[in-house]
Amino acid sequence: MTFLFNSDARRGAIFAEAFAKELPDLPFTIDAATVDPDAVRYLITWTVPENLDRYTNLEILFSIGAGVDQFRFDAVPAPVKIVRMVEEGIVRMMQEYVTLAVLALHRNLPAYLAQQHAGEWRDIPQPQAASRRIGVLGLGQLGQAVLDRLKPFGFQLSGWSRSPRRLEGVTCYHGELGLEQMLAASDILICLLPLTEETRGFLNAGLFAKLPDGAALVHTGRGPQLDHEALVAALDSGHLSSAMIDVTDPEPLPAGHPFWSHPKIILTPHIASVTQPATAAQAVIDNIKRHRAGLDPIGLVDRSRGY
Amino acid sequence: MTFLFNSDARRGAIFAEAFAKELPDLPFTIDAATVDPDAVRYLITWTVPENLDRYTNLEILFSIGAGVDQFRFDAVPAPVKIVRMVEEGIVRMMQEYVTLAVLALHRNLPAYLAQQHAGEWRDIPQPQAASRRIGVLGLGQLGQAVLDRLKPFGFQLSGWSRSPRRLEGVTCYHGELGLEQMLAASDILICLLPLTEETRGFLNAGLFAKLPDGAALVHTGRGPQLDHEALVAALDSGHLSSAMIDVTDPEPLPAGHPFWSHPKIILTPHIASVTQPATAAQAVIDNIKRHRAGLDPIGLVDRSRGY
Repeated sequence: MTFLFNSDARRGAIFAEAFAKELPDLPFTIDAATVDPDAVRYLITWTVPENLDRYTNLEILFSIGAGVDQFRFDAVPAPVKIVRMVEEGIVRMMQEYVTLAVLALHRNLPAYLAQQHAGEWRDIPQPQAASRRIGVLGLGQLGQAVLDRLKPFGFQLSGWSRSPRRLEGVTCYHGELGLEQMLAASDILICLLPLTEETRGFLNAGLFAKLPDGAALVHTGRGPQLDHEALVAALDSGHLSSAMIDVTDPEPLPAGHPFWSHPKIILTPHIASVTQPATAAQAVIDNIKRHRAGLDPIGLVDRSRGY
Repeated sequence: MTFLFNSDARRGAIFAEAFAKELPDLPFTIDAATVDPDAVRYLITWTVPENLDRYTNLEILFSIGAGVDQFRFDAVPAPVKIVRMVEEGIVRMMQEYVTLAVLALHRNLPAYLAQQHAGEWRDIPQPQAASRRIGVLGLGQLGQAVLDRLKPFGFQLSGWSRSPRRLEGVTCYHGELGLEQMLAASDILICLLPLTEETRGFLNAGLFAKLPDGAALVHTGRGPQLDHEALVAALDSGHLSSAMIDVTDPEPLPAGHPFWSHPKIILTPHIASVTQPATAAQAVIDNIKRHRAGLDPIGLVDRSRGY
């Protein structure tokens, strides 16, 4: 049995070292060309390689990233488990980015940047954190971790997920009706949803209309979830105040796209959170140990939900 | 005896309401013109009024702001206690601003803003928080509160103060030698010092030279502590990577000053933290109760230190 690593060599070297130490009985290779396909039990990759079915004994397909939306599930034989990347490096980076984004929007940074650009020294009325309502779309590991970091600042926190959740200090909503309720009470909305057929185009004109006047958006989900034109329209009308956007569709964002120059948008090039090789290697090793012990891996994908 | 409130009427109304409720025996006025000067025991103000000595029975002079650098101490009779504003609203706002600034510099926001402006989609190598060394100048209430908020992100935290301190999870330095040591180990330096004769011009070329290459600066102290030209030179040489600056000298910053347009500077117009009337009124009320009970007020200024 073999672990096949199909990603960049720098990450591969870090994985190889960790595997040699913790799973010395499991051959590790980054060379798909020479590996015996029948020996491959585990594969880690960003996209599903051509003719995946030649790996006749494949047990787990690991995504190198937090999402699995880049996988075509129908290209993955049914018995193969698909596992998202759940590792503390991704979580920590997302906590940093979303806290940065929420504080930036809470403290009117886009407007202050525009004032700096215009040479204008003027303070903007500042609501206190206790009166700011933050709504998080998606209450998986990332959503919960982000809420943990926001809690000490004293914001009013709420979150929405498909199925009911209970989280201390967070007003939890779920389902269609819950979504409407949370949107109406979100001054700053954060999207951390996985990309599925249900969430494609989720952040659209209809959703923005349900937010309070002056609301702001943090988008760290996936580009295709956001109707880019609808966001520009909502900002230009003044209904939304500002946005911090890390993901677009397509990526890179084309030259001349309004996001590049919009004074109410802070744009970053999909850098909110990326897999950290050392902690990711440990997470994958732990998952192989769980699998060998007959347990489900952490991050096991439910193909019917799509994440 | 009377409490004389010498600041804007909006804040005054909030103070008046709190005083009526908690100190009903203490007359409260915002009208310096008609008050009997001999009756004034307490005065709150931003600057010391002319002929302060007519308030012959003055016991405490409260600053409406966190600093007392705007007071000329020699204009305040020796028996009068001078008290800084120490209140949770100021503290919370400073926690927000400095956390925002540290995360912005940690996550390369100034460079990403420049890229957005240039239409460039490119990720920048990102150190992990665990390898970022944060140094805080000033370990009073604000410095300690800021460190509390930074702690969960896993940064390496250190702080410097005049006299020795011990804080859990923070490497504490003091004195001349301690300053050199902390500067050499600060990737992001935060200035929260009070303005005194000793700290005027503190952030200068000599200090910047002691920081590691690529270090960044958060300045939320007072404008005259910063040698503005030296900061521009250190950024232009590449020795410093970026800065987030909330205070300048003078304020407002004059038109055409390089801070307005510098691509490595995020400039805000002295909005990091301002006194919040409701919490400030409570803090002053609590201090009057302490004073009446024979205790020192919180925030009592040591005139020889200057803060």
